[in-house]
Amino acid sequence: MAALRARTVLLTGSNRGLGLELVRQLLGGPRPPAWIFATCRDPEGPRAQVSARLHGSQTLSSVSADVADPTAITNAVKIVEAKLSGTGLNLLINNAGIYAPVTLDTVDSEEMIRAYKTNAVGPLLMAQAFLPLLKKAARESTDKGLSCSKAAIVNISTVMGSIERTAESFFKPVISYRCSKAALNMLTKCQALTYGETGILCVALHPGWVKTDMGTQEADLTVDTSVRGMLSILPILSEKHSGSLLNWEGKVIPW
Amino acid sequence: MAALRARTVLLTGSNRGLGLELVRQLLGGPRPPAWIFATCRDPEGPRAQVSARLHGSQTLSSVSADVADPTAITNAVKIVEAKLSGTGLNLLINNAGIYAPVTLDTVDSEEMIRAYKTNAVGPLLMAQAFLPLLKKAARESTDKGLSCSKAAIVNISTVMGSIERTAESFFKPVISYRCSKAALNMLTKCQALTYGETGILCVALHPGWVKTDMGTQEADLTVDTSVRGMLSILPILSEKHSGSLLNWEGKVIPW
Repeated sequence: MAALRARTVLLTGSNRGLGLELVRQLLGGPRPPAWIFATCRDPEGPRAQVSARLHGSQTLSSVSADVADPTAITNAVKIVEAKLSGTGLNLLINNAGIYAPVTLDTVDSEEMIRAYKTNAVGPLLMAQAFLPLLKKAARESTDKGLSCSKAAIVNISTVMGSIERTAESFFKPVISYRCSKAALNMLTKCQALTYGETGILCVALHPGWVKTDMGTQEADLTVDTSVRGMLSILPILSEKHSGSLLNWEGKVIPW
Repeated sequence: MAALRARTVLLTGSNRGLGLELVRQLLGGPRPPAWIFATCRDPEGPRAQVSARLHGSQTLSSVSADVADPTAITNAVKIVEAKLSGTGLNLLINNAGIYAPVTLDTVDSEEMIRAYKTNAVGPLLMAQAFLPLLKKAARESTDKGLSCSKAAIVNISTVMGSIERTAESFFKPVISYRCSKAALNMLTKCQALTYGETGILCVALHPGWVKTDMGTQEADLTVDTSVRGMLSILPILSEKHSGSLLNWEGKVIPW
């Protein structure tokens, strides 16, 4: 199986759950990146595990960035740019996300906006801010076509953002989450159509229903299985996948 | 062809364009409703035409309601409830919407949130607030199944909210609009799954590309044709259409 050859990776929401495991498996893989920038709202805070667990790695840099805060994102770009010393960023993984157990009866305007800011606007702002570094990586590469080793934006989405498949998981209505993730799926399609010509692959991934704080222990996948699945499909993605929603096994999910 | 028999209708964004024409054709139809509540942000303002053009109708009531403002919505419910004197509301048409010509390069967080508030959160809050009156209308009806004459939420959406069909209209990127309308489509599906059992039909409608302030004069449909089309399909909608996105001719649009 092809291995991911991304030299530089930035991942949001890296403090726990899927984000933390993505960092761990990227570091432990056959060809670890030269740089992994692991961002979260508060890397030194009590809920952040990435600093404590992975401290000491030469390839890992913890960066503070609340994806709902444009100023924090601008600051993160400066830090990453300085570390990269003129080279590009190959892979941006927008993993940060929030989830609230609200229904149509209980949701309010504030919760709708809160979810949208983090789950849809955040990934948009991150891609905007890191676009010059992603374009640089695309230009530096001699690879033909699009790939996650060359330059890519991976938005961690969910089957719960699939309008077509809403009925099958509606025992969890999570309205604010579903609406924000449908918007994220639309964003991914727009990013693919806009950034494809500059050599950047854009894809949305459904990690499965995973045993994390968000997914709870009822979930049917371990974090290890989900992340192993996602990292095994990243290297095989090409222009034909750009602008799609795929699950952790690489199967296309309808919108 | 079946005629719409909705006794009471509430329509947002009624000051001009599609909203104004919907009011006009509803009033002039073969079986005009007993009550049409035509809401907009400022019914007495210089851009509102509904008061001036339609003033004097016994069936029309102009109500002030900014759909992005929860307090304004609560006030609108009180006004409508008082006029209805204990009867229900058959049809809520969430037509208010905004549109900005932004791309992935030019859009910012504020514009993303602004579009989401009006185009997705507004329809959610309107349905929440008017739900008791919609349920009352459903209970009052002796009709079997779901229909727009009995009790319905019609969300005016757009093919530009269809992720599947994004490429064909991407010469207008309108990112904030597309993302908010994809979320509105998800909301419609969730409303159909939640409210169907209480007798309320929920559907999203694409009015076509219409010659309005929003659509510009380049558009290929007149306001008259679009509204005539939408009003001719409302009476034939049933439970099999609930939770779908249909165009002004009743054709299903993929998500």
